Amino acid sequence: MNNVTTICAIASAPGNGAIAFIRLSGNEAFSICESIFEPATSGKKISKQKAFTIHFGKINDEEIFIDEVLVSLFRNPQSYTGEDLVEISCHGSQYIQQQILQLLIKKGAVLAQPGEFTLRAFLNGKMDLSQAEGVADLIASSSEASHKIAMQQMRGSFSIEINELRKQLLNFISLIELELDFSEEDVEFADRTDLSNLMNKIHRKIVELTDSFELGNVIKEGIPVAIVGNPNVGKSTLLNILLKEDRAIVSEIPGTTRDAIEDIINIKGITFRFIDTAGLRETHDKIEIMGIDRTKEKIRKAAIVLLVLDASDAMANIQASIRTVKPEAKGKQLIIVVNKVDLPGNHQKLIGYLEGIDKEHDDLIYISARTHINIDKLNEALLRKVDLSYLAQNNVVVSNIRHFEALEKSREAIERAMNGISSGLTTDLLAMDIRQVLHYLGEITGEITNDEVLGNIFKNFCIGK
Amino acid sequence: MNNVTTICAIASAPGNGAIAFIRLSGNEAFSICESIFEPATSGKKISKQKAFTIHFGKINDEEIFIDEVLVSLFRNPQSYTGEDLVEISCHGSQYIQQQILQLLIKKGAVLAQPGEFTLRAFLNGKMDLSQAEGVADLIASSSEASHKIAMQQMRGSFSIEINELRKQLLNFISLIELELDFSEEDVEFADRTDLSNLMNKIHRKIVELTDSFELGNVIKEGIPVAIVGNPNVGKSTLLNILLKEDRAIVSEIPGTTRDAIEDIINIKGITFRFIDTAGLRETHDKIEIMGIDRTKEKIRKAAIVLLVLDASDAMANIQASIRTVKPEAKGKQLIIVVNKVDLPGNHQKLIGYLEGIDKEHDDLIYISARTHINIDKLNEALLRKVDLSYLAQNNVVVSNIRHFEALEKSREAIERAMNGISSGLTTDLLAMDIRQVLHYLGEITGEITNDEVLGNIFKNFCIGK
Repeated sequence: MNNVTTICAIASAPGNGAIAFIRLSGNEAFSICESIFEPATSGKKISKQKAFTIHFGKINDEEIFIDEVLVSLFRNPQSYTGEDLVEISCHGSQYIQQQILQLLIKKGAVLAQPGEFTLRAFLNGKMDLSQAEGVADLIASSSEASHKIAMQQMRGSFSIEINELRKQLLNFISLIELELDFSEEDVEFADRTDLSNLMNKIHRKIVELTDSFELGNVIKEGIPVAIVGNPNVGKSTLLNILLKEDRAIVSEIPGTTRDAIEDIINIKGITFRFIDTAGLRETHDKIEIMGIDRTKEKIRKAAIVLLVLDASDAMANIQASIRTVKPEAKGKQLIIVVNKVDLPGNHQKLIGYLEGIDKEHDDLIYISARTHINIDKLNEALLRKVDLSYLAQNNVVVSNIRHFEALEKSREAIERAMNGISSGLTTDLLAMDIRQVLHYLGEITGEITNDEVLGNIFKNFCIGK
Repeated sequence: MNNVTTICAIASAPGNGAIAFIRLSGNEAFSICESIFEPATSGKKISKQKAFTIHFGKINDEEIFIDEVLVSLFRNPQSYTGEDLVEISCHGSQYIQQQILQLLIKKGAVLAQPGEFTLRAFLNGKMDLSQAEGVADLIASSSEASHKIAMQQMRGSFSIEINELRKQLLNFISLIELELDFSEEDVEFADRTDLSNLMNKIHRKIVELTDSFELGNVIKEGIPVAIVGNPNVGKSTLLNILLKEDRAIVSEIPGTTRDAIEDIINIKGITFRFIDTAGLRETHDKIEIMGIDRTKEKIRKAAIVLLVLDASDAMANIQASIRTVKPEAKGKQLIIVVNKVDLPGNHQKLIGYLEGIDKEHDDLIYISARTHINIDKLNEALLRKVDLSYLAQNNVVVSNIRHFEALEKSREAIERAMNGISSGLTTDLLAMDIRQVLHYLGEITGEITNDEVLGNIFKNFCIGK
């Protein structure tokens, strides 16, 4: 790690704040800092100070006084990047941030690329690749569940599982390769039944991880929910109320905002994402036509379908709506929402009909969006549709598509090897399949990587991380 | 300062960043921090650690692990607020920021009001009121000049001048009051000529400060520039080019942005603000009618007037334009901009005519906005119109309207006292006027203040400062 450049970037969120935060990392971090920083208490130079200490002083550009700042000191290898690292906390004016950054560049630092601090942490062995990706996910996480998964990943739980698999595979391969060395003598050092058992075990684990991606992905991206139903049954009113109640729950802490444009709600730490609601919100349900194709398309994208019915509607309309949606929602989680129960209607008959439908796998909820009746019940029903037991058991959940794809390839390779064993594949071909599994698992943690893969991963990081 | 609450707030800019920054200040800062923070290296509690040190560890909400953070420690009185103070630097996800803040509140901290950290710094004698106001100005400053003025104010240069004036006035009043004590004996302890000289000196200084507000205010708010001229002379093209060239100069450093909506340019650290350009930009100069009233109004608001002429225009139009604008621009800085010099026209005659106009106080610049000819010369001319010699001499410049108003009242009171001396006013009435001067000057630094004044000042601060 000699001769690496010293990088700098603003690490706090862009814009004006009370305080801003500039990071400087690399061999020259201390000397560059010394060239612009004048400590308030005369004494030792920054480079002579202890790690994990804070120093008050002034930043000057030659004659021009730029700011009073605090400088925090971290020493290689005990820093985020594993390099000498300085953090400057200055007044949060954008002008000052820019001045200090320009000054650092003038003194020899270069502007960090997105994620370059974390890339250096990876290159210096402070974390593996999946942990580095966990850092980005952590910063992007916006719910309790996505936070938990990202934190697990950043802290290395996932890496531990992958490394355990790799260790077992390496054991396996060392046995196989011993055979290859003695191949002319036609001996079997590895008992084929033991090998089969070991591979079954590894395969099970890989499948378990691969399967967890479905949960991991919806938690990360939000669980897709479709609201469907005949025109004028109150879909947009319902959507607005769900969104509004959630917005009201989000505490009014300044400095934290939730993007109000996206149709997302958060129930007990789980994010639900309503899909294709643009039309709904524009038309306010009045002129929207329940086009069969559009409804099908919506349902196809959803994990949960909310079929909204109007309790005051004619029975025929209700029946038609159920007949249209129910077959399409097969394999999805269906919640039947009977709206407008505050209005007069043939409720007795309706309830009778609905109870009669096989609702083994469906939830059936009577609400009034307009008068807020049973909205809490609907929230509970949404939450019930998500099986979080897997997450609650502190199982590792895969949420990164790159990891998922590498796991899928590992699974295919190990399945080839398993078939190979049962069909008496030669040892050298078996070894090749196992090496492939090792390769794909190594890609996840970054044991095996290349500049292109790294580039793709870190380009999505924010600057300063 | 006993029994004050412990306050907390996010101090970095709102939104997602690589790192976020949470501040906690007050008697319970250490104990609240200890209740949620688990240091990575087992050892002393936070409250037992040295000031100016940094500690790595985890923040937990009971069983739930929230983040890995760095905790920085500052001890009363050596902290920003003068209280025990903890700064938590966490991953910059809004979810995490919110979780930590809620946790701090659960453990007994209260959410800080805007500017409350700085208010406490003021109440604990870490800075006076004008310095505290300098902090807010510093964060808002967006140009070299406004940064310089705010920094001077925050660092106390202005306070020193005010306190010097107060000291002289207190001297003065002690002499006067001695006379009051002995009033029945009809003695004059204070020589009236000496008093007069002293008051003249104080008055001069107050007037100097008051006068500096004109400069201070335009630097803080931007120097108002009006672009006027006949339709179709190229006003909007010129405006767009001035704005665009400036935007291009602003370095492309991520994390710093300049509001592109406002018509502001920055030339060598001075902000120029174009006024009433909305019409210009919408109509692109094509259908804009040079309404006399509107032009007058624009010129009235401006410090600098750019009169744009079209070199290819008929002489009569050019003359009419100058005849209309020149009298209105009396007392303003006028720059005559002859545009479209790249087009054919009777340039010889035009130059002859323009040279003939008394241009002692005017700048006359030949440009082509379309082909970018002499735009640099126009920038230089704008800069020449601002007299920065006063600022360059490191004189204190008043930029705060509250200070200006207090200085104006001080000036009125001292003028009353001066008139009183020359007209033989009784000593007790003289003392009353001097006390008024002391009062108003004391308002500036906060020697004299009340909750309403403090409330008005700090409500405009950002949260976390």
